Amino acid sequence: MTRATRVADLGEAGLLAAIGGLLPRGRHTLVPTGDDAAVVAAPDGRFVVSTDVLVEGHHFRQGWGTAEDVGWRAAMQNLADIAAMGAVPVSMVVALVLPPAQPVEWVLGLARGLAQACGPLGVGVDGGDLSAGEGVVVAVTVHGLLEGRAPVLRSGARAGDVLAHAGVLGHAAAGYAVLAAGGRESAAAGGPVDDELVRDFLRPRPPLDLGPAAARAGATAMMDVSDGLLRDGARLARASGVVLDLDPLTTTVPHALDRLGPAARRLGVDPQEWLLTGGEDHGLLATFPAGTALPAGFRRIGRVTAGEPGVLLGGGVPDVAGQGWDHFGG
Amino acid sequence: MTRATRVADLGEAGLLAAIGGLLPRGRHTLVPTGDDAAVVAAPDGRFVVSTDVLVEGHHFRQGWGTAEDVGWRAAMQNLADIAAMGAVPVSMVVALVLPPAQPVEWVLGLARGLAQACGPLGVGVDGGDLSAGEGVVVAVTVHGLLEGRAPVLRSGARAGDVLAHAGVLGHAAAGYAVLAAGGRESAAAGGPVDDELVRDFLRPRPPLDLGPAAARAGATAMMDVSDGLLRDGARLARASGVVLDLDPLTTTVPHALDRLGPAARRLGVDPQEWLLTGGEDHGLLATFPAGTALPAGFRRIGRVTAGEPGVLLGGGVPDVAGQGWDHFGG
Repeated sequence: MTRATRVADLGEAGLLAAIGGLLPRGRHTLVPTGDDAAVVAAPDGRFVVSTDVLVEGHHFRQGWGTAEDVGWRAAMQNLADIAAMGAVPVSMVVALVLPPAQPVEWVLGLARGLAQACGPLGVGVDGGDLSAGEGVVVAVTVHGLLEGRAPVLRSGARAGDVLAHAGVLGHAAAGYAVLAAGGRESAAAGGPVDDELVRDFLRPRPPLDLGPAAARAGATAMMDVSDGLLRDGARLARASGVVLDLDPLTTTVPHALDRLGPAARRLGVDPQEWLLTGGEDHGLLATFPAGTALPAGFRRIGRVTAGEPGVLLGGGVPDVAGQGWDHFGG
Repeated sequence: MTRATRVADLGEAGLLAAIGGLLPRGRHTLVPTGDDAAVVAAPDGRFVVSTDVLVEGHHFRQGWGTAEDVGWRAAMQNLADIAAMGAVPVSMVVALVLPPAQPVEWVLGLARGLAQACGPLGVGVDGGDLSAGEGVVVAVTVHGLLEGRAPVLRSGARAGDVLAHAGVLGHAAAGYAVLAAGGRESAAAGGPVDDELVRDFLRPRPPLDLGPAAARAGATAMMDVSDGLLRDGARLARASGVVLDLDPLTTTVPHALDRLGPAARRLGVDPQEWLLTGGEDHGLLATFPAGTALPAGFRRIGRVTAGEPGVLLGGGVPDVAGQGWDHFGG
């Protein structure tokens, strides 16, 4: 098989065989992929499930990153949803739509990216489906286990709680902006700092371990920040019927402003906009009862107060241009 | 909201709110859709999972059936995979890619079709994801419970077993051919018989109850027939290392030949080809130890013998034009 081999040349069975050898079996997988369905263990009698889709031209562009990057990101953005419930991911299935002319090597790269993300965690890629279509679509469904704990919902925050965040903020938005302004060459021109932002966009590293750690520490509410701190924070605020009042960002995330500064200056963007509205970092936003010793990796970024549900910054309405991401531009 | 309202007009949040009210919560759903992930009960400590994707222009065409039909079929073809393991479906999640100009009414129809299929079964639609894209893609992941039983795999058939089938054979292929030959008007011209074939294509009714029933009756192997009896039968044969020897179809499925006859004559097709290679009926192919009282709804269609794994018809190699469906034409 040469690098130029297309999906249509190999056919469905050949492609499945080629992919299958690359994908990990999970530690909880009882019957792996290859039958009508897989069987996965759920020792505490419950499983957690979430689904997320990536579309070529919307969530990724060929040429910006590698196929491995796309597979990695498809896995990580789903794994983060499981962590955000306080659960441990164990299994995923992947539905893949491919144009017949798609290079087989690209598909194998995607499979390697999925495996790089899932394998070390003991997460199995336990099934999939292939179909022809006009553009590439990667639909991932991921499953996790609560290990006997209650799930941490968005609705449990109470006035008086501490608001905390783990992971990076604004890096993916900044990395995307660097690529959109001129691709990888522009990133290289920006030096190692910009290059790191691009890497954080292409290969997000959500703090997956901190989901269960937050649950064990008594988190009252938690969610994955995928559409930006303001937009996702507002969702948590509405679900809980509370206000999230962010401390000034210069005090809570000073290093982030350093990190984002050079690219922001070059592109003429207010770095605070990336921090507040940038999506796809897949950090964890959580609330804890006052006085909780936060798990290492979480930093306090504000507090929960009573009032009309929403997000404030230093007690006032945040003044930024974008308010986060709507997939249909509505 | 008028019928002409587009997805882009309503936006992601508005669309989610409109869909959400239409979807059923399942009998086993502990935390429904709306958080980062759902939580579903799995009382025997295991869950079964499978995923399947439908792509506009490949699996369905707008104008042939309604949006409800697409939702129904997306659900049913997934539910059949759970039944084929001997499991009872309990939960699904749906990732949806939509062009911004897609009518909102179409999306609501899709949701109603999913609900029509899932609601009466107590299956929850427990999560989803929306994205913009060029064409419509519906990716469904479905979960089931084994209720303490062992899963029925493809690999358990043994020489001496009886080969049985439940559900219809060739109807979906015939219904598709009728539509492809001239759309619904052509179907109407063919009268009520052709109309029933079109309905079986647009709204398959897999014998879902018979999956667990087969497991309880001691089925040694089972699978969903989605790509045609010959192609799927060969998969079961290879997985088990056996030969599936079909009895002559005139003795085992005479009524099917009556049903398919008029459309076959009109379109100049050998109805045996539809029976042997037609996909998307989502019947169940199963093997049972000789002497098993087959659950009502299963009919004996052949036997399992030793030899080079494959499918025979009356002891010989089947002589038909198509050999089933490859999604990439390979």
